[in-house]
Amino acid sequence: MKIVIIGSGNVASHIAPALHRAGHNIVQIFSPTPEHAQTLAAVTGSDAISDIRNIDTTAQCYIYSVLDDVLPSVIGAMPALPNAVHLHTAGSMDINLFEGYQQRYGVLYPMQTFSKNVEVDLCTTPFFIEGNDQQTQDTALQLARQLSHRVICATTAQRTQLHIGAVFASNFTNHLYAMCHDILDAAGLPFDVMLPLIDATAKKIHTLEPHKAQTGPAARHDKKVMEKHIAALTNDTQKKIYKLLSDSIEQSAE
Amino acid sequence: MKIVIIGSGNVASHIAPALHRAGHNIVQIFSPTPEHAQTLAAVTGSDAISDIRNIDTTAQCYIYSVLDDVLPSVIGAMPALPNAVHLHTAGSMDINLFEGYQQRYGVLYPMQTFSKNVEVDLCTTPFFIEGNDQQTQDTALQLARQLSHRVICATTAQRTQLHIGAVFASNFTNHLYAMCHDILDAAGLPFDVMLPLIDATAKKIHTLEPHKAQTGPAARHDKKVMEKHIAALTNDTQKKIYKLLSDSIEQSAE
Repeated sequence: MKIVIIGSGNVASHIAPALHRAGHNIVQIFSPTPEHAQTLAAVTGSDAISDIRNIDTTAQCYIYSVLDDVLPSVIGAMPALPNAVHLHTAGSMDINLFEGYQQRYGVLYPMQTFSKNVEVDLCTTPFFIEGNDQQTQDTALQLARQLSHRVICATTAQRTQLHIGAVFASNFTNHLYAMCHDILDAAGLPFDVMLPLIDATAKKIHTLEPHKAQTGPAARHDKKVMEKHIAALTNDTQKKIYKLLSDSIEQSAE
Repeated sequence: MKIVIIGSGNVASHIAPALHRAGHNIVQIFSPTPEHAQTLAAVTGSDAISDIRNIDTTAQCYIYSVLDDVLPSVIGAMPALPNAVHLHTAGSMDINLFEGYQQRYGVLYPMQTFSKNVEVDLCTTPFFIEGNDQQTQDTALQLARQLSHRVICATTAQRTQLHIGAVFASNFTNHLYAMCHDILDAAGLPFDVMLPLIDATAKKIHTLEPHKAQTGPAARHDKKVMEKHIAALTNDTQKKIYKLLSDSIEQSAE
């Protein structure tokens, strides 16, 4: 397929090379920042454009991988291309953003944490797809299956809940890692001593439901240890997070 | 060495078999609940006792692996055995709990999440040790090195900060996994779709400092998505946690 990638951020910079490797012809990479478009276009053998009016109108598929905030205006700026399939990659954005602009549209949402320059195994990344009609959904399904072994059809409402779940399980989790990093740093200890525990915690829930895997002072209602920890924390936000999450664990354990 | 294990909980049930495999003679397992002592004693070829007065006083090492709450009373109930080394395994408990009761004492703290019946790789688990004199510290060091490749001397104050860090990076993280589980469950989605993302999030910080690995709506100050997510959550505690952690991420990103 002839594909145009609109965007050059964390998601686009993983999806575009994978589609290229799968044998698709990535004809253009669009980014308002010319250097960003050029960097990614060099990897995928594409033309880089930074003016949406120069978009190649002969592609069969347009993939919109831009920040949620600008997605509506980018969709609005595109010419109507009724023969092509238009897919956005955003977890929390409605499929109907395309309504009134395009005729065949849908969603191709890879649920993963993407950082530029960090390798990600797309094959095992679940892709959630949606299409505004059966034919479009089939196209999205085929495309996703070339990238991943795990492709699931999900409605916009389900995708919102998935994205919220991902914020808890990935973004918030990473922030707790960062707080742990700061706490160890202040105590003169290297962060990497925590990696085996972090890995074991993630691994454990492959075989045990997370509620059953819960350990620690809050799970065993050990008030003395919790009070000692809160007293030993010097950062107010860390104290608040410690209290709120411990209360929540205690409630869940009841 | 002749070793007595005092306790039969999550930590004891991993440490005792490992010491047994390393060639030590685990002479007794103590637990106030006879069945618990018997179950573990069967694995390590030991005698099970449930009355502390029946403790074998001829061992060279006593390992106290009981809940923090009961540790002081267990230490108080033990006879004075000045020739033996006495070690507790608690992250948040002071080495000086043994003061006035024993002469040679210290700490052997494996920083890991232990659940009964879940295998743990002790070899890669960091052990933090402390001794009240050089000779005792050396004994603790030797013992720990037979169980793990990573043994670090740490003071009681450092150990408290390590334990707090572990609560953030493991116990709280697991609770976020549990919340994610509940959110997906309510949306009719299986939790296992989240495992690749959870694994990638843990893996990423092996090569990237957690502050730099932060992604998601809060890290990019995407107010619209955050408001949408908070509105879509039906559980008040989840709303509070979403707000507090997002605010904290936004502050860190400044």
